[in-house]
Amino acid sequence: MQLFYVPAITTATLHLPEEEARHAIQVLRKRTGDVLDIVDGRGGWFQATITAIDKRSCAIRVEQTRQEAYRAPSRLVMAVSPTKNNERFEWFLEKATEIGVDEIIPLQCARTERPRIRANRYEKVLVSAMKQSLQAWLPRLHPLTPFSAAVAATTAGAQKYLGWCDESVNTPLIHNYQLASDVCIFIGPEGDFTAAEVDLATTAGFQAVTLGPNRLRTETAALTATQMIAFLNQLKK
Amino acid sequence: MQLFYVPAITTATLHLPEEEARHAIQVLRKRTGDVLDIVDGRGGWFQATITAIDKRSCAIRVEQTRQEAYRAPSRLVMAVSPTKNNERFEWFLEKATEIGVDEIIPLQCARTERPRIRANRYEKVLVSAMKQSLQAWLPRLHPLTPFSAAVAATTAGAQKYLGWCDESVNTPLIHNYQLASDVCIFIGPEGDFTAAEVDLATTAGFQAVTLGPNRLRTETAALTATQMIAFLNQLKK
Repeated sequence: MQLFYVPAITTATLHLPEEEARHAIQVLRKRTGDVLDIVDGRGGWFQATITAIDKRSCAIRVEQTRQEAYRAPSRLVMAVSPTKNNERFEWFLEKATEIGVDEIIPLQCARTERPRIRANRYEKVLVSAMKQSLQAWLPRLHPLTPFSAAVAATTAGAQKYLGWCDESVNTPLIHNYQLASDVCIFIGPEGDFTAAEVDLATTAGFQAVTLGPNRLRTETAALTATQMIAFLNQLKK
Repeated sequence: MQLFYVPAITTATLHLPEEEARHAIQVLRKRTGDVLDIVDGRGGWFQATITAIDKRSCAIRVEQTRQEAYRAPSRLVMAVSPTKNNERFEWFLEKATEIGVDEIIPLQCARTERPRIRANRYEKVLVSAMKQSLQAWLPRLHPLTPFSAAVAATTAGAQKYLGWCDESVNTPLIHNYQLASDVCIFIGPEGDFTAAEVDLATTAGFQAVTLGPNRLRTETAALTATQMIAFLNQLKK
């Protein structure tokens, strides 16, 4: 199965966005009358028939529509410092989307070595991973956000965790997470959070947690936390 | 903390292997009298003092030795088809080592598109991830193994699972794994296992399982299974 992505479908007849049209026509050699499976990144599934093709455009008519309920019992917000090596961060974006995440906040910490992010490129990684893993929900990507602003923006009702590598931390995330409410997890840069950042977060109600016995790279820690939440949701279903 | 890797330490005075010596001297600017932390990949931790340095060699004297017990309650053997894109497979090797895995079998399936593997390169990825994550055990990397030979070699007492993407499979790995015994998990290539392969494995006592609701890429599925076992071991401790 091959999914297409059209972010807003409001009419029964429309043209595919340029990139999706090129993929349908030039890569997959679709023809008039072929049926496409489309998602809108907001839970919508569509089946549409190709009504006309020319070199760069592909007109379709939507035949069936299905709205998927929001999948998770609670929302997962992952706030992660982008890594110095950009590929490692894109890798995290791809894998977290495959596994399941609701929002991603690139976190600008005191020790973050990347002053800007490639938001357009990252959106493409998310869309591609959503289609690849046959999902209808696209994670929301936030702009690069200063640590203190991200702490302040975390909603009051959510469970708030800070993955901190300090030896004093002996509370495992896996034993604390509760299905009942939304969860927000912060993962720091290669040099970890500063003491001032840890103070700021714990004062705001964050709990410092460990993800396990091994020292994990930033992107591995972020994916591990994502998978932990996905597994605990599966286990407790 | 920075770990060095010396695969066999049998005497109290020795020279670091060439690559480790270069790293110590040229990258980290270590000097005579500095203390190094070394692992042997077989559970051994060593502290050693540098006794002499020249351009390419670094003589050390072992001061302290500690043998770490085998970490897992049961051994995890991951048998995974190498992916068409080599980077994706190396990514899996790195992440699985960080998370914790005992043996890796590159699996040659009917639909595997990679006729050979880069074993020397893969060993370097494993060693680097072991050092990075501060572990003393190096996963064992097997040669590229035909599917039927890998099935036949799986020991009788182990739990045997086959990650199969077929819609008929509704047994989740997460609800079946038991801490008590060793576990072997097979993950297929991009095109999945063939019906003949599934027959061969189930006849040999493998159980077809699903890893969750989303369609996962080969390397994501293999890492997801690895993390699932690590989490369940943590949860049940």
